[in-house]
Amino acid sequence: MKPNIKNIAVLTSGGDAPGMNACIRAVVRTGIYNGINMFGVLQGYQGLITNNIIPMDARSVSNIIHLGGTVLKTARCLEFKTDEGMDLAYEHLKLHQIDALVVIGGDGTFTGARRFAQRHHINVIAIPGTIDNDLYGSDFTLGYDTAINTVIEAIDKIRDTADSHDRLFFVEVMGRDSGCIALRSAIACGAEAVLLPEKATSLDELIKQLEVGAATKKSSSIVIVSEGHKQGGAYDIAKHVKEKFNHYDTKVTILGHLQRGGSPSSFDRILGSRLGYAAVNELLKGSTQQMVGLRGNDIRLTSLDEALTEHSFKLESDLLEMTKVLSI
Amino acid sequence: MKPNIKNIAVLTSGGDAPGMNACIRAVVRTGIYNGINMFGVLQGYQGLITNNIIPMDARSVSNIIHLGGTVLKTARCLEFKTDEGMDLAYEHLKLHQIDALVVIGGDGTFTGARRFAQRHHINVIAIPGTIDNDLYGSDFTLGYDTAINTVIEAIDKIRDTADSHDRLFFVEVMGRDSGCIALRSAIACGAEAVLLPEKATSLDELIKQLEVGAATKKSSSIVIVSEGHKQGGAYDIAKHVKEKFNHYDTKVTILGHLQRGGSPSSFDRILGSRLGYAAVNELLKGSTQQMVGLRGNDIRLTSLDEALTEHSFKLESDLLEMTKVLSI
Amino acid sequence: MKPNIKNIAVLTSGGDAPGMNACIRAVVRTGIYNGINMFGVLQGYQGLITNNIIPMDARSVSNIIHLGGTVLKTARCLEFKTDEGMDLAYEHLKLHQIDALVVIGGDGTFTGARRFAQRHHINVIAIPGTIDNDLYGSDFTLGYDTAINTVIEAIDKIRDTADSHDRLFFVEVMGRDSGCIALRSAIACGAEAVLLPEKATSLDELIKQLEVGAATKKSSSIVIVSEGHKQGGAYDIAKHVKEKFNHYDTKVTILGHLQRGGSPSSFDRILGSRLGYAAVNELLKGSTQQMVGLRGNDIRLTSLDEALTEHSFKLESDLLEMTKVLSI
Amino acid sequence: MKPNIKNIAVLTSGGDAPGMNACIRAVVRTGIYNGINMFGVLQGYQGLITNNIIPMDARSVSNIIHLGGTVLKTARCLEFKTDEGMDLAYEHLKLHQIDALVVIGGDGTFTGARRFAQRHHINVIAIPGTIDNDLYGSDFTLGYDTAINTVIEAIDKIRDTADSHDRLFFVEVMGRDSGCIALRSAIACGAEAVLLPEKATSLDELIKQLEVGAATKKSSSIVIVSEGHKQGGAYDIAKHVKEKFNHYDTKVTILGHLQRGGSPSSFDRILGSRLGYAAVNELLKGSTQQMVGLRGNDIRLTSLDEALTEHSFKLESDLLEMTKVLSI
Repeated sequence: MKPNIKNIAVLTSGGDAPGMNACIRAVVRTGIYNGINMFGVLQGYQGLITNNIIPMDARSVSNIIHLGGTVLKTARCLEFKTDEGMDLAYEHLKLHQIDALVVIGGDGTFTGARRFAQRHHINVIAIPGTIDNDLYGSDFTLGYDTAINTVIEAIDKIRDTADSHDRLFFVEVMGRDSGCIALRSAIACGAEAVLLPEKATSLDELIKQLEVGAATKKSSSIVIVSEGHKQGGAYDIAKHVKEKFNHYDTKVTILGHLQRGGSPSSFDRILGSRLGYAAVNELLKGSTQQMVGLRGNDIRLTSLDEALTEHSFKLESDLLEMTKVLSI
Repeated sequence: MKPNIKNIAVLTSGGDAPGMNACIRAVVRTGIYNGINMFGVLQGYQGLITNNIIPMDARSVSNIIHLGGTVLKTARCLEFKTDEGMDLAYEHLKLHQIDALVVIGGDGTFTGARRFAQRHHINVIAIPGTIDNDLYGSDFTLGYDTAINTVIEAIDKIRDTADSHDRLFFVEVMGRDSGCIALRSAIACGAEAVLLPEKATSLDELIKQLEVGAATKKSSSIVIVSEGHKQGGAYDIAKHVKEKFNHYDTKVTILGHLQRGGSPSSFDRILGSRLGYAAVNELLKGSTQQMVGLRGNDIRLTSLDEALTEHSFKLESDLLEMTKVLSI
Repeated sequence: MKPNIKNIAVLTSGGDAPGMNACIRAVVRTGIYNGINMFGVLQGYQGLITNNIIPMDARSVSNIIHLGGTVLKTARCLEFKTDEGMDLAYEHLKLHQIDALVVIGGDGTFTGARRFAQRHHINVIAIPGTIDNDLYGSDFTLGYDTAINTVIEAIDKIRDTADSHDRLFFVEVMGRDSGCIALRSAIACGAEAVLLPEKATSLDELIKQLEVGAATKKSSSIVIVSEGHKQGGAYDIAKHVKEKFNHYDTKVTILGHLQRGGSPSSFDRILGSRLGYAAVNELLKGSTQQMVGLRGNDIRLTSLDEALTEHSFKLESDLLEMTKVLSI
Repeated sequence: MKPNIKNIAVLTSGGDAPGMNACIRAVVRTGIYNGINMFGVLQGYQGLITNNIIPMDARSVSNIIHLGGTVLKTARCLEFKTDEGMDLAYEHLKLHQIDALVVIGGDGTFTGARRFAQRHHINVIAIPGTIDNDLYGSDFTLGYDTAINTVIEAIDKIRDTADSHDRLFFVEVMGRDSGCIALRSAIACGAEAVLLPEKATSLDELIKQLEVGAATKKSSSIVIVSEGHKQGGAYDIAKHVKEKFNHYDTKVTILGHLQRGGSPSSFDRILGSRLGYAAVNELLKGSTQQMVGLRGNDIRLTSLDEALTEHSFKLESDLLEMTKVLSI
């Protein structure tokens, strides 16, 4: 049975990711195209608590598709984790007669959305938006492709200078628990080695690998270090390596938050547009507590229960093997 | 039964595409890692005819992963279409004791590869490399993602200035028979309209669409024109529209061959690496007359027979619908 | 004697140029820092006529320094050329008690500013903002550096593919009366030839030059065509050349308005900031009917009279000579 | 009197800088255009010691104008500082009958060039190539403009995400003794504060500045830290600030060597071309022990004696003042 939905709100929560604006635009315009009144909630769940909710028309999302960040802002919100917080949030939604909600974010966002939908009578569709690609049910999350492009553009520049000297570069990339960015960046920039949070590569192994490279006349080497690696960040690892392997001069780059920003790649703009479009269409069909995701080249639903329970080891096995084969 | 392969050659043919160098690197290094002697054929099939074949070691493909174009060059080659040409090519391969061939290119390249493998005793794996994404058996061809990124970066700049005036911009993109670049670019840059070779959009329809935009206070509009559109290129269409719809000043950009170049995106570098790695592994397993392609997030085989016979309408249906919904 | 200035307005007029936003930001914040009330006029002189004038505080120019285009918009305005238009504009300025005006634009903008300041009691400082670099009194105009960077990024991509085939590329760049963009682009991308509006290069000369290149084994050649060239645009010239010189396949790119957009280069952001800062400081010192410009690495004043009367041939002589020497 | 120069060699030494390849190309082609035999010395002065000297023709510098790094490589060379080393270097030059030398690099390079020219009969012209802009006699050194563009592109991405949260970002940029990159980057990205090696900004001052920003409702702030700052690198300073000023979450980015790489900006390509062209022309006129530099928009000579003795405080005074005024 089709629900009688008249008003839909959209919010972004957790860390921002490139492509969120393309997604917001698609949510808003798909709603308006279907005769729905659309609302934006500012600063994520915090805006539900503080009633920071604004109406959005088609023009309000003009010229944002190419912008990094999120025009709706995000914020941490402890209060929404409490029953009182959720009840207050629900009151504010009712005030605007909002029937359904689209939330864009990572698993913290999804957890909040599920609890909220279970406690209150409100339909919710979630969209995977995080540069870390650490969610089950979507091959790619919003912002992941852009983040990798950002990393490789940075490393390409390092290679220019690497090519002129005998040097060993350590580049720290994001991914506290997920090596997705590190792995794909390593393949895409032709790194000599990569340290992933999922794999306990010992320093001895790393040094052995670098020695082989030095012996086969590599002029310089690049090592990608995921920020979540057990043996520390890029500085620590560079220091330890330097003590044992004195062949090269070592240099460190910490990319940090620049990986979160930048104009979204075409892949992320299209993904954001497709997911936003699908999210509203699913709400109009009556779906709730589902995540819309990309599987292959198709948009598919995964229940929030499944998305939050299943754990995907998302490091492609051929890519893992290739880090060794292609860096000879 | 595993073939006894000792020497493999790789070539690029047809129009070049970003990611070809990443792919060549993967082919060469995967071969060497497996104890194979690797060769590069310069200028595509032409190099087989002229015996322009060079040995390649691991260092010969250093520092090329990020380069556009192809270090092996490409060329048109009519002679390879003749039996005599193919026989001469085969002689040169035998001269170097080359047992198997990896060819990177589009459907012309595949047709040549199939005929060659059928006539002579040589194993061939094909890799889809073309910015047009017009091949069956791979969701994405090598270079397609980079080409779309190139187009949207160009259009983003046009938007900057579009936002300041009342203007109608026509941007002509590549794709003589395939609207893939046009469609994805249109979604990714938020174009107001798109003209595809696969769809006969009449000028009257286009003008009606633009009038709606003008009425809803769009300050400027961008129309993507695929070079293969029935009603002509961007200049012709701009001229016709101007005659009937005088609301805006019209401006034309012809992107041309810059869409073929540029440093490959991370997506294309990874795709090229995966396909090159898979191609050599398939040859070592005894596969022949197959194309390696990307389906979903997995590498899959398609026989050249199927790849060359089947026709895929690759315009995603949700994207087609979204060009209308999201440009309101 | 220091004038008693309390309220200053800023506007952008004519074609927009990257760096205008950095300049607006500098004007507004320098004023506020000095205790002045600041105003923005929307859509150039048109906004003076229609009283589209808004107060601006320090936060109103946050996060715009990196944006192309102009947040104040521009427009053509015929009415401001009339005495009645100017009188109406002046009334609106008086309404807001605006004592002084900063105008950012090209020579049309400067002409308007001078006539307005002569007719009415209002101090005006002009800032050179145009990608064409066709103004006297400033080595570089705002947007020029960014435009050249945009052109060479485009041509670099063409080179990638040029390197793989025997081809002749014609790239049309902006500059109806000024070859500044064409000349600097030609040097910066290593073009084989450049056609400037200031110089009557015959097609025969061009073909002779290309023949020399072909003879010395250049694989491909790039010709930059300024849109204002006597013998037509890139399409016309490519056609004529093709008829007489059949060595290469010819391809055409028309960059068009993408040259006006894009995030400003550091050079243009700094130039915009310096000029905006200087403009307000000059108004506070009592200067009027002056242009602030960059001479060498210093900010200098030129009277509008001089700026509008003098004509500078801005094509650096060593660069002109270098187009021939460096393309061998 | 014109010298009878028949053979000229060019080398790059010290840290590499974007634009060096454009400069090498201009040196080689200007020489060949004038009938000179041209040579390239690999790995800087080291290549003179090891006789790593190769002939270069016009095609040998094709398609390098847009590449970062240096195709001639650089290296540290202690041996060239000794008399024996210089004598050996001279012998190798005589072996190739090389009459004159163009050296591209920083003040270490210049010091070597001057001593070498004084000890042996060889004419030398020096070209300022370093991203730090810390040389006397040229407003801009080769690579400086590109490095600033690289920094601001990185910081623009940080701003995207900065805009969504309350955060304080510390970005460490290059410049051990020179704050040039830091100062121009700070202006160009609209940083809230900048710490320069030339100025002893106390942490207390910095915190006061940040408190003002917080009070005026800045959502986030960016602080540029020059790597040579007395109070430590970005990590140390972030830690100290965090202890005293708890308003924001602090995040750190260390850009490191990516600032040395990347495709040169049009400014650096043109500057490199002009300087290389001028260097050879000066040698042909008989000049020696001179540096060619950019003053204003003109190429000018400075003697190596003066270039190495004079010290320029190159931080533009208006820019210093503007860091305070424009960040309100």
